[in-house]
Amino acid sequence: MSDTIASRLAAVRGEMASVGIQAFIVPRADEYLGEYVPAHNERLHWISGFTGSAGGVIVLEKSAAIFTDGRYTVQVRQQVSDKLFEFESLTDTPLADYLAHHLVAGDKVGIDARLHHMAWFEATKHTLAKSGIDLIALKQNPIDQHWRNRPALPSTPIMLYSAAQSGQSSLHKRQQIGAEITKAGAELALITALDSLAWLLNIRGRDVPHLPVVMGTGLLWANGTMRFFTDMSKLPQSIDAQVGEGVSFYPEEDLAEMFSELKGQKLLADPHTANAALLLAAGHAGAELIPGMDPVLMPKACKNEVELDGMRNCHVRDGAAVCRFLAWLDREVATGNLYDEGELADKLARFREQDGHYIEPSFDTISAAGANAAMCHYNHLNGKAAKLTMDSMYLVDSGGQYLDGTTDVTRTIAIGDVGAEQKKMVTLVLKGHIALDMAKFPKGTTGPQLDAFARQYLWQYGFDYDHGTGHGVGHFLSVHEGPQRIAKNANSVPLLPGMILSNEPGYYRTDGFGIRLENLVEVRACEALADAEREMLEFNAITLIPFDLRLLDKSLMTRDEIDWLNRYHKRVYQAVSPLLHEHDLAWLKHATRAI
Amino acid sequence: MSDTIASRLAAVRGEMASVGIQAFIVPRADEYLGEYVPAHNERLHWISGFTGSAGGVIVLEKSAAIFTDGRYTVQVRQQVSDKLFEFESLTDTPLADYLAHHLVAGDKVGIDARLHHMAWFEATKHTLAKSGIDLIALKQNPIDQHWRNRPALPSTPIMLYSAAQSGQSSLHKRQQIGAEITKAGAELALITALDSLAWLLNIRGRDVPHLPVVMGTGLLWANGTMRFFTDMSKLPQSIDAQVGEGVSFYPEEDLAEMFSELKGQKLLADPHTANAALLLAAGHAGAELIPGMDPVLMPKACKNEVELDGMRNCHVRDGAAVCRFLAWLDREVATGNLYDEGELADKLARFREQDGHYIEPSFDTISAAGANAAMCHYNHLNGKAAKLTMDSMYLVDSGGQYLDGTTDVTRTIAIGDVGAEQKKMVTLVLKGHIALDMAKFPKGTTGPQLDAFARQYLWQYGFDYDHGTGHGVGHFLSVHEGPQRIAKNANSVPLLPGMILSNEPGYYRTDGFGIRLENLVEVRACEALADAEREMLEFNAITLIPFDLRLLDKSLMTRDEIDWLNRYHKRVYQAVSPLLHEHDLAWLKHATRAI
Repeated sequence: MSDTIASRLAAVRGEMASVGIQAFIVPRADEYLGEYVPAHNERLHWISGFTGSAGGVIVLEKSAAIFTDGRYTVQVRQQVSDKLFEFESLTDTPLADYLAHHLVAGDKVGIDARLHHMAWFEATKHTLAKSGIDLIALKQNPIDQHWRNRPALPSTPIMLYSAAQSGQSSLHKRQQIGAEITKAGAELALITALDSLAWLLNIRGRDVPHLPVVMGTGLLWANGTMRFFTDMSKLPQSIDAQVGEGVSFYPEEDLAEMFSELKGQKLLADPHTANAALLLAAGHAGAELIPGMDPVLMPKACKNEVELDGMRNCHVRDGAAVCRFLAWLDREVATGNLYDEGELADKLARFREQDGHYIEPSFDTISAAGANAAMCHYNHLNGKAAKLTMDSMYLVDSGGQYLDGTTDVTRTIAIGDVGAEQKKMVTLVLKGHIALDMAKFPKGTTGPQLDAFARQYLWQYGFDYDHGTGHGVGHFLSVHEGPQRIAKNANSVPLLPGMILSNEPGYYRTDGFGIRLENLVEVRACEALADAEREMLEFNAITLIPFDLRLLDKSLMTRDEIDWLNRYHKRVYQAVSPLLHEHDLAWLKHATRAI
Repeated sequence: MSDTIASRLAAVRGEMASVGIQAFIVPRADEYLGEYVPAHNERLHWISGFTGSAGGVIVLEKSAAIFTDGRYTVQVRQQVSDKLFEFESLTDTPLADYLAHHLVAGDKVGIDARLHHMAWFEATKHTLAKSGIDLIALKQNPIDQHWRNRPALPSTPIMLYSAAQSGQSSLHKRQQIGAEITKAGAELALITALDSLAWLLNIRGRDVPHLPVVMGTGLLWANGTMRFFTDMSKLPQSIDAQVGEGVSFYPEEDLAEMFSELKGQKLLADPHTANAALLLAAGHAGAELIPGMDPVLMPKACKNEVELDGMRNCHVRDGAAVCRFLAWLDREVATGNLYDEGELADKLARFREQDGHYIEPSFDTISAAGANAAMCHYNHLNGKAAKLTMDSMYLVDSGGQYLDGTTDVTRTIAIGDVGAEQKKMVTLVLKGHIALDMAKFPKGTTGPQLDAFARQYLWQYGFDYDHGTGHGVGHFLSVHEGPQRIAKNANSVPLLPGMILSNEPGYYRTDGFGIRLENLVEVRACEALADAEREMLEFNAITLIPFDLRLLDKSLMTRDEIDWLNRYHKRVYQAVSPLLHEHDLAWLKHATRAI
């Protein structure tokens, strides 16, 4: 039998029949439930041909459907056969609704419980039960049983990350978090998020694209001792000395056996980050599950001084790389060379790669010319890369993983002359960016309380943007980390000193143009407030790259906003100019001139 | 036996022993769980002597404790015997913690389940169970068994409120909300909030101070038919014609019997507004409880055009009354007559009473001179009323119940000359008030997203205030109504056209002075936004009373803010001047002059 999508669906349906299920769900996730997935775990791609970063498939006995969001409406139809799949919207049609509509009472839906959060599993099981449908965890994933020539798991050795690089020994981190486990009323915690594990053990890896982590699962006891279940072949000789006392390593397959020792023990686990298979197994083994937030999240989010210094330092070098790119781009456009989005993204990567501490992009670069930028998650690899055109705007959202930190920046750039309407919109977005940057706020304030600062000027004219304003960023870890967030949606996590967030308002004119202006900022104690009655916090931008002055309508800006911009550009010049020369230095001087 | 607090405690302890409980909780609430309680139901006062508006008592076998918040720290010690009660803080010591600390496993805590929300009952039962303590609903309230000379229940007849006054017939309202009951998956709803019942039946009453409602309980079926359980002696002859078809009236005591007919029926009930006794009884009777928000809340919050017109109209007359008061106050201060807080509150009430549609104050007036205003819920009746002093500020927060609407306004007034620091703080508060008033925001925006607009200028200097920025207001109903709210705390209710909210930032300098600047605003569709891409909303102030120009530091205000103030004052003058004469008119002209 040839290995086609049709034959794969047939093989999966054969397994479905043999275990007696009428539907099988394939999410775009692996057992670590992170944002990125190694090729070994790209099951959604195997079953459908779809390469997007979000989506899911439901295989029924006689049909199948693929669910994607608005970003992939075009791409999914190019990559996936409409003879084999119906196309559904993830946002308009919840999976459970689709299943309830296509199945009857008594039917069974199978999942690989490793690929779903426990919280999702419980909610979906509850919803389907209302229609008399059962959701069951399969013993084996039908895809894994039939995947020929499956890509190997990554085998890069673990990279040791010293206390000098991370600012704190693993032992100290584990003891500190152990105390939090006791406070939560538990005896030990299941740690499953890969960035939590990497931070806790002071290790990094290359197992997942864009995210420098090591695949594995951890159990952390309240006294700080830990067992890490991973591919033992990746362990370097010096690992024990690095992680300090109290850590033992086991093959991943030993985890199930370990659970049997947890009978009657109070196990803290995060149902929003841990997969259902692990928590079901722990429950069956007799552990008393205490649901609660991953205790690593808050200490990891509040960077220590070494982590903050690393973040600040890599942003100076990242700023220089992006400035070289922008200076080069201006020169090329001036001589009439209009590149395409792919060439531009590659060129930007080349500039970053000149840095000795650079590892890889922190996410897929969004390189969007003209109207393509109106799609806020545009990816030029999903179709034919467009060329720049004169008298338009170019949006580039990119970042790097460096040994000392993680960057993420978006700039919107003038290609030739742009019209007054575009300049007005860029200025409104920048005014929001500045308002958020200049905010001072009492300790205890959460992101959603500040989100509207960034939207207020767009709102005054009847505009808005449909994404969050700010996400957390890790230290040489995930470019999207929680638990804090600046967005419309409720989030009860207070902003605290040492947290890094993005400040990225935007505006998207359908079929016209797109704007996003993004800096990373650190949260710090307010400097110099003479009569303050409250403990106040503020943001401080760590991204050091000019905003394009050619796109601003100064008449819409207040004196305070102009002063902010001039102060920021002065900081950019002072920090980045020592790393630039000749053409590039001249470009920076001009780009950061006071207005 | 004489009727003293000690003898009352002894009598209650006797009942506790006879039913075998070790603790009894007395909240400041009656079975309707509203903000105000008629004298008949002031059980907290009976058991302790305390007259404050928030608090609770726990009677143990050998001791008792009274719980109050920061507003009543002084008053509770004046009114309550420290020989009989320990003093505890409601905020620092949750009742359940106190009970867990003072009782042992196996003990029982009794409550009158009518006096607690179902949600509170379930949460507290769950918490106490962790310590092996049981929370039980008593068959009889020990206080009611021993209350001699108990004040009678109010017996004022029901006031009929026509469709011309309310803008919608009761039948239409009931049919509309019946559809919501079906949507919630229920067959009928238990309606317990007194303002919900009054709004639904187009009736008003005088059963509760400040809140023009009728005591009773309702059951509303999905087809719009309703049973109202109340004191039948209050029903006017014409009630049937007024409420329209489908409403039948029963004595309150018939409700229990009615529940027995609900076996197997799906009953929508709000565990945050309905008392535990009702929901326990419905559950025992076999009704299937569907927890959900009181379906009257949203339609009641979004006022119709008649309600809005009533609100606007009463604010013009209320504005004239308050302006007369403020003009009189300025004249008296100018001639050296400095009144005390009680005299001022009474004088203000006299001005409101001149209006033919005025019924009563919508809450206890906060009349606070000088440093007393630093207590944001100050009540001059809780101690000795202070006299105004020269060169200070006076804060007055008051409102009226009118036949066509409800008002609530706070102004801070200069008494003589005040210093630069006070003016700076008043100006920062006003800048926040203006920023919130000028906000435009897309449909779907919630109060917490806008709250920081009102705080941002205080935050810039390290200041804040510890109360919400805005509460909903009813139409000739509760001056504090939900479900919308502008505050730091999460609230997922979107602001919608027709909602009325307060806009009341403040600032409180301990032992120094207090500032609050409060208007009521309506939410409405944005006028004249030419290129708007979103459905935008905005606020429009309906309170029409000048802000004291003598307290502003114009140098801290932007041109937009000054323009806003001048526009607002022009509106105030145009609306209110036709109702004022001579001295008062001249005062208004001066008070609303452009700056």
